[in-house]
Amino acid sequence: MAVGDVSFPKMHSIAGLTIGSSEAYVRYANRRDMVIFEIAEGASVAGVFTQSAFAAAPVILCKKHLLENSIRYLIINTGNANAATGQVGLENAQKTCEKLAELSGVQPNQILPFSTGVIGEQLPIERMLQGVQPALNSLNADSWEDAAYGIMTTDTTPKGASEQFELDGVTYSMTGISKGAGMIRPNMATMLSFVATDAPISQVLVQKLLSTTVEQSFNRITVDGDTSTNDSCIFIATGQAGGAQIQSETDSRYQVVLEVLSRIMLRLAQLIIRDGEGATKFITVKVEGGSETQECCDVAYSIAESPLIKTALFAADPNWGRIVMAIGKAGVPNLDSSKVQVWLDDVQICLDGGANPDYREEMGAAVMQQQEITIRVDLGRGIAQDTVYTCDFSYDYVKINADYRS
Amino acid sequence: MAVGDVSFPKMHSIAGLTIGSSEAYVRYANRRDMVIFEIAEGASVAGVFTQSAFAAAPVILCKKHLLENSIRYLIINTGNANAATGQVGLENAQKTCEKLAELSGVQPNQILPFSTGVIGEQLPIERMLQGVQPALNSLNADSWEDAAYGIMTTDTTPKGASEQFELDGVTYSMTGISKGAGMIRPNMATMLSFVATDAPISQVLVQKLLSTTVEQSFNRITVDGDTSTNDSCIFIATGQAGGAQIQSETDSRYQVVLEVLSRIMLRLAQLIIRDGEGATKFITVKVEGGSETQECCDVAYSIAESPLIKTALFAADPNWGRIVMAIGKAGVPNLDSSKVQVWLDDVQICLDGGANPDYREEMGAAVMQQQEITIRVDLGRGIAQDTVYTCDFSYDYVKINADYRS
Repeated sequence: MAVGDVSFPKMHSIAGLTIGSSEAYVRYANRRDMVIFEIAEGASVAGVFTQSAFAAAPVILCKKHLLENSIRYLIINTGNANAATGQVGLENAQKTCEKLAELSGVQPNQILPFSTGVIGEQLPIERMLQGVQPALNSLNADSWEDAAYGIMTTDTTPKGASEQFELDGVTYSMTGISKGAGMIRPNMATMLSFVATDAPISQVLVQKLLSTTVEQSFNRITVDGDTSTNDSCIFIATGQAGGAQIQSETDSRYQVVLEVLSRIMLRLAQLIIRDGEGATKFITVKVEGGSETQECCDVAYSIAESPLIKTALFAADPNWGRIVMAIGKAGVPNLDSSKVQVWLDDVQICLDGGANPDYREEMGAAVMQQQEITIRVDLGRGIAQDTVYTCDFSYDYVKINADYRS
Repeated sequence: MAVGDVSFPKMHSIAGLTIGSSEAYVRYANRRDMVIFEIAEGASVAGVFTQSAFAAAPVILCKKHLLENSIRYLIINTGNANAATGQVGLENAQKTCEKLAELSGVQPNQILPFSTGVIGEQLPIERMLQGVQPALNSLNADSWEDAAYGIMTTDTTPKGASEQFELDGVTYSMTGISKGAGMIRPNMATMLSFVATDAPISQVLVQKLLSTTVEQSFNRITVDGDTSTNDSCIFIATGQAGGAQIQSETDSRYQVVLEVLSRIMLRLAQLIIRDGEGATKFITVKVEGGSETQECCDVAYSIAESPLIKTALFAADPNWGRIVMAIGKAGVPNLDSSKVQVWLDDVQICLDGGANPDYREEMGAAVMQQQEITIRVDLGRGIAQDTVYTCDFSYDYVKINADYRS
């Protein structure tokens, strides 16, 4: 079950964007598994994608289409990742785009395709193609929640975030959804997120806003350290709510949009962790006092991905030796362990690299009982910092991943 | 329970080396938890140690003493790692060496101390010091099995390997022990190994032999990817069985010693995996066709440390999409996924980056039922190769690590 507040919010509709869905029977009958976004002409669309060398066929097409043409549609299926599917997989992704192009009167390279699900199996392409028209028939500005359900795999909750904000007296909306119960879901193949605003933002700045905010949100979460073949995150600015286009970072409106987008991306990313496979706790790992951000990030991930720390978190065991182990193995050059401090929330467990003499086991045990815990580390060698979000490692993680395909 | 053949062999004694042990009550009463090795004068001794920035106090002293003096004793305790213990921890390790030096008539820096067990607690130094004389009193050439038991933590079996070999008509022995139920045991703090021969080998070559063989043995195993604070591996050549000292790699006897040591180190390392926490399967990950060894090693570890692959192995699910996921995320520059092949034993599951059309699920399922499985990958871009050994990830892994300290 998901950890903490995962409530689905009121989703503000985005002028210039409608959403439809259908039951295409990609893997299971009688479930919504195809979603289409229709985007008004003139929108700015940006994407970031998995770094995997086994990037899925739809990821390859997405990158190509973003370079070639203006984007008018997104088409997403769940149940099959279309990854490690070779030339046939690429042709199937292309056929999906061609079908939607034919029915909607745009070019195939104005469409971005997305797939999520099992890796290494071919799409049931005939059923997929038959699902396109029904999805188009249901296009509607108020279907964000349907879309959030329609892209789920083993997620236990739909994931959404939405805000309204004002720029120069005009009210704009920003709304997004995500899916994934782990940064990595190789079997179910992974994390997707789609965020849109009706604010007017240039293509260059839409990409910059996305690249900037993804760094501190989706690029700072981990369930199991496994990077998927299909991770994709898309940001759309339709510009349909009026106002002059934002074309420069020095435009004072840029900073407002950046802050709203940062909050929405962080919420969508954290929702994935709260719904992490088998998760019973939501963990924030904050590393301060580094000489550079990268080493703080390395230490944070070393802690957040350690199976021994994650099982101790599951057991509510304040076994802080495992935390210094993870700091020690993170590869920080010339780290002086005698300057390292570690806290569980506000309880200092490690002082100057050794046990804090004022620490008592019951103090750590009290923090470990909580559903939400911050592990804070000070490396004592600078002012850089970074934060990563993760969950614990439970029997259910093994159960979910050992039993899923069978 | 340990996987496959973990039988304890006949342990050939080493001329010039005796072993004693005692019950020092480091953590638990009524168990052998202190071991002393006495080494004859004139032996060559080499060590390799953890790369952790939180290296334990005894590791720090070991490195110092190896540089300063000839080594005459090893003293090892289980139950407490003496790691993350600050200045007091260093003083305790020093006191242990001083006590043994006083009782045996050598200098303190002729002694190498080792600790394994819980991180972050101070040694019970008074009880430790009282344990030294009883251990000295029991020194004996035939106590290798006692020593193997005496260094165990949560290991379920003692781990030993022993061979005899002939150089220029002289028969020599080589014998070693190891402990650890994971490359990483932060709570129990980790892997130790001690190997000795009575062959005559120079100090320089002993270090070279150890550094060379550790690379393809202890540096190629993983249970959970967590590097401990206390990993130590020691190789001793007493030279007490006669013959002229081997002083050059061009000496034909060097190659024989290298081969024997390689076999013993690999066996001792594999025994740790066979006894891995919660292990039900022994997995060999062999990556071939790389443009350099490092990228083969990176891919092999990416597979061997993936929680999703390890849970699939536990479930005997031939879920090969998870394997291509791990290859894809390994960071190999410009990897062409269409040239990648993957086999489970001799069953090719992935052909040219996609599903092998001749593959049927039952073929993979049959391999996955085995206790010992080889995952073989061909990257299709060169002739380099590397091999890593690991185990699966079971409910018992979570149980052992969630419940251990409580």
